[in-house]
Amino acid sequence: MPPKPPLVLPPDVPSYLSPFLPSLITSPSSPFLTLTYATSLDSALSFLDSQTPLSGPETKAMTHYLRTKHQAILIGANTAVIDDPALNARLPETTLSSQPRPIILDPRGRWDVSRSQVLALARAGRGKAPWVITRKATSVPPEWEAALQGVGGQYIRLASSPDIDDRGRIKWRDIMSALAECGIESVMVEGGASVINGLLAPENINFVGAVVVTLAPVWLGEGGVAVAPGARHNKGVRVPVARLKDVVWRQFGQDVVMCGRVRGD
Amino acid sequence: MPPKPPLVLPPDVPSYLSPFLPSLITSPSSPFLTLTYATSLDSALSFLDSQTPLSGPETKAMTHYLRTKHQAILIGANTAVIDDPALNARLPETTLSSQPRPIILDPRGRWDVSRSQVLALARAGRGKAPWVITRKATSVPPEWEAALQGVGGQYIRLASSPDIDDRGRIKWRDIMSALAECGIESVMVEGGASVINGLLAPENINFVGAVVVTLAPVWLGEGGVAVAPGARHNKGVRVPVARLKDVVWRQFGQDVVMCGRVRGD
Repeated sequence: MPPKPPLVLPPDVPSYLSPFLPSLITSPSSPFLTLTYATSLDSALSFLDSQTPLSGPETKAMTHYLRTKHQAILIGANTAVIDDPALNARLPETTLSSQPRPIILDPRGRWDVSRSQVLALARAGRGKAPWVITRKATSVPPEWEAALQGVGGQYIRLASSPDIDDRGRIKWRDIMSALAECGIESVMVEGGASVINGLLAPENINFVGAVVVTLAPVWLGEGGVAVAPGARHNKGVRVPVARLKDVVWRQFGQDVVMCGRVRGD
Repeated sequence: MPPKPPLVLPPDVPSYLSPFLPSLITSPSSPFLTLTYATSLDSALSFLDSQTPLSGPETKAMTHYLRTKHQAILIGANTAVIDDPALNARLPETTLSSQPRPIILDPRGRWDVSRSQVLALARAGRGKAPWVITRKATSVPPEWEAALQGVGGQYIRLASSPDIDDRGRIKWRDIMSALAECGIESVMVEGGASVINGLLAPENINFVGAVVVTLAPVWLGEGGVAVAPGARHNKGVRVPVARLKDVVWRQFGQDVVMCGRVRGD
C-alpha cells in the first residue's frame, strides 16, 4: 500500500474547537470528558459487519487534532476487537508527549492487546502505552499482561462490586475515579455504540463535559450499529434523553461537526 | 392563547436555499420533489405519543419560506391524523396564490378532512383547498367528500392495481404521475416517518430532487418515530441507502439545516 497522504488540518479548526476543549482547571476527582463520534443521518456509526468510512478527510484531521488536546482516548472493548484502531494522533509534527493515552474499557477481558495496533505503535514510539480497565474478577492470559507491561502499559483492575451496573458494565463513576487516581485530567471517548449509549444515560450524562459529533450526509439503513440511547421518562412522560447548549455547527467538506455542552435540565 | 409572534426569516435564507429550490425547467411527467424533515441527533422525528417541538424558531421560518417556493406540500395520513398540521406558509405577507396546495396521502381513507385545520384555513382563505390522494377501492364518508368539495378540494383516486406496493402503500411512480396530471410542478414532502422511509427506498430515491434536513442538538431516545430507511444490499453486501452530494450545512439558532442532492450511484 502506498503511504497515506498526511492529514491536513483546516486552519480555523483550533479556534472553532477551543471553547469546547478541556479547561485547565479541572476537578481533581473527575477528568474532563469529551464525547465524540461520527454517524450517518440515521444515527448509525457503521454497518454491523464492517468498518464504514463515514466521514471525509477534513473531519479526520479534526479528530486527530482533538486527540492531541486530551490526555487519554477511551473506547470500548468491542470497538477495539472489531476495528483494531490505532488511537494515536497522526497529524504531522505530533510528539510522543502530546499523544493521548489509549484506554480500553474491557470488563470481561475480551481484547487481545498483544496483537493490537495500539501495542505495535507503542513499541514503535508512535503512541503511548495502552491501559486496559477491567474488573478484579476478570482473568486475562499471562501473555497479554506480559505484552502490555513490556511497553509500559497496565491493567487497571476495579473492585468487582459495586463497580458494575445491571448490564455487566463498569460504572462510569468508578471509571472516572480510577482515571483521576491515575492522573488523567482529560479523556476523549470515541465509542463504540454501547459506550456512547451508556454515557448518555441519565446517571452518566453529567460526566460529559463536551460533545463533538460529526454527521455525514448519508443514510446507512436499518440494522447497523446505532447511537440509540434508552428512553427517558419524567413522572411517567417521555422526555428527551439529553439536550445540548452553546451549540456550534461547522461544515467540513460534505460533513458537519457539532460541538456543544450538555444542558443541565 | 395570545397570538404567536410573527415568523422572522433570517435575511440570508433565500440565497442559502436558492440552489436547492425547484428549478423552472421541470419534467412534464414528474414534479420536482423536495424531501424535508427535522430530527434529533438519534434520527427521531418525535416521540410516539406526542408532537415534539424539536427545532427552534429560525428553522421554522425557513420551512415556511420553503413552503412558498413549492406548489404543493405532501404529508402522509398518519401525520395528518396525529398532528392536524396547518400546512400553510405563515410568513408575513404570504398571499393565497403563493400558498402551497396541501396534499394528504391517504390510501386507506383514515383522515377526516371535515374536522381538519387545513380545511378551516382553506375556508378562511388562509390556505389552498386540500387534495387527498387515495385508492379507487377506498370509500370515505360522504360528509368528508362534501366538506372537501365545499372548499374546492378533491379526492384524487388512483386505480387500485398496480398502484400499491407490497406494504399497501401507493407507489411513488403513480403519485408523481397523478400530481403532474393535476398540474403540480413542485412538491415538498414533509413526512411522516413512513412516507420519508418509503421515499428513501431504492425504487423511489430518484424521485427526490433535493433534501432539506433540520437537525436539533438533542437525543430523544429509543422507541420514537424515526427516520430509519430499510437496509440496502448490492451483490449481497450492505451499502448505504443513499448518499448526498453538493451538501451545504447552515446553523440556525442551535439547530443545523442540511441541503443536498441525491447522488446517483
